[in-house]
Amino acid sequence: MRIGEVAGNVWATRKVESVRSLKFLLVKPLDMNLKPTGELWVAADLVDAGAGDRVLVATGRAARLAVGDEAAAISAAVIGVVDALDMGRNK
Amino acid sequence: MRIGEVAGNVWATRKVESVRSLKFLLVKPLDMNLKPTGELWVAADLVDAGAGDRVLVATGRAARLAVGDEAAAISAAVIGVVDALDMGRNK
Amino acid sequence: MRIGEVAGNVWATRKVESVRSLKFLLVKPLDMNLKPTGELWVAADLVDAGAGDRVLVATGRAARLAVGDEAAAISAAVIGVVDALDMGRNK
Amino acid sequence: MRIGEVAGNVWATRKVESVRSLKFLLVKPLDMNLKPTGELWVAADLVDAGAGDRVLVATGRAARLAVGDEAAAISAAVIGVVDALDMGRNK
Amino acid sequence: MRIGEVAGNVWATRKVESVRSLKFLLVKPLDMNLKPTGELWVAADLVDAGAGDRVLVATGRAARLAVGDEAAAISAAVIGVVDALDMGRNK
Repeated sequence: MRIGEVAGNVWATRKVESVRSLKFLLVKPLDMNLKPTGELWVAADLVDAGAGDRVLVATGRAARLAVGDEAAAISAAVIGVVDALDMGRNK
Repeated sequence: MRIGEVAGNVWATRKVESVRSLKFLLVKPLDMNLKPTGELWVAADLVDAGAGDRVLVATGRAARLAVGDEAAAISAAVIGVVDALDMGRNK
Repeated sequence: MRIGEVAGNVWATRKVESVRSLKFLLVKPLDMNLKPTGELWVAADLVDAGAGDRVLVATGRAARLAVGDEAAAISAAVIGVVDALDMGRNK
Repeated sequence: MRIGEVAGNVWATRKVESVRSLKFLLVKPLDMNLKPTGELWVAADLVDAGAGDRVLVATGRAARLAVGDEAAAISAAVIGVVDALDMGRNK
Repeated sequence: MRIGEVAGNVWATRKVESVRSLKFLLVKPLDMNLKPTGELWVAADLVDAGAGDRVLVATGRAARLAVGDEAAAISAAVIGVVDALDMGRNK
């Protein structure tokens, strides 16, 4: 799993049926200095996250478990909004 | 999942039986500035996407769920065509 | 699987129900010189690891097997704390 | 999935029983300019590909579906030999 | 799957129960020039490989199939020791 920052929303009208009711977010994974790595991920939103939020992103079957629908054709989901983190000893 | 840009089509006559009826697209994943990362992915097309379209790509079992065939030997699929995205607050 | 160094803790109050009881760690994967690669991973902690510990991180279903809950929406877990390693012949 | 170029063969006498009858290929994944990325993958060959062929590589369970043996301990397979590709509009 | 070079051993006394009997190796994945990429992987050893050996590494469920224990919380395994490889036409 990765920690990322929500970059914004993405909309797709033409999509496969099983993902029709899901909201998708653009997420920038963060590096060990908590800066964006340059990558851009897409993840289903289960926790009502918004732009600028730091979030936890799970991939694979974990995403479908988060959605509660094993038939949803997704492979990434936001599973939590980060409140705080502590990297003191290693910075 | 990643957001990518469809680069074009790829054809393979000699292939495993379970993927015979599928159409494959070449997709360039995009970085956080919406520029191609340099990578080139191949994904089964379920939404009739075309060159230049921005698309959502899911991997693993999600691809087989999108195809509706759990026995298809694929590990990536285009699951949606992007209509719009909003990265305002983070650009 | 990767070997990483625990960077610290991450807290998320708003999260999906199935991960509510889990503790999450920030982990920096190490390169072949045992230096952090720059990436930052998040993994469920099953072995009571702490900041600075070198740990083994498994991904995918292995993480849910480690947790002992196949319904937990996670895709990475710390499965062991490294006591020693031997890279003598290849350094 | 990725498009790659077959680099050659790899032989392993001492291997786990479930992969004993499989032929393994070395494959270089290609970037968006169709040049090797520098990585080197290993994939089971199901389509009788040879050095220099451009091929489609699927990962994870898709590889075992391609082999037709869900118990084979492999996580990548060549599922097709590329005949042609069209990247005209994006070059 | 990747081809890698065994860098050495890694020991973890405090680990999840299901991996207790496994031996873990540090493996450096090789690039297309057969040089280490800089990454360091950890994989369960099923073929009694040793430092300096070139090996095939499978990930995900393939690792558990190699171990013969679908409940083992691992996501990578060494499935074969490389005897020879042929990259003549592409070097």
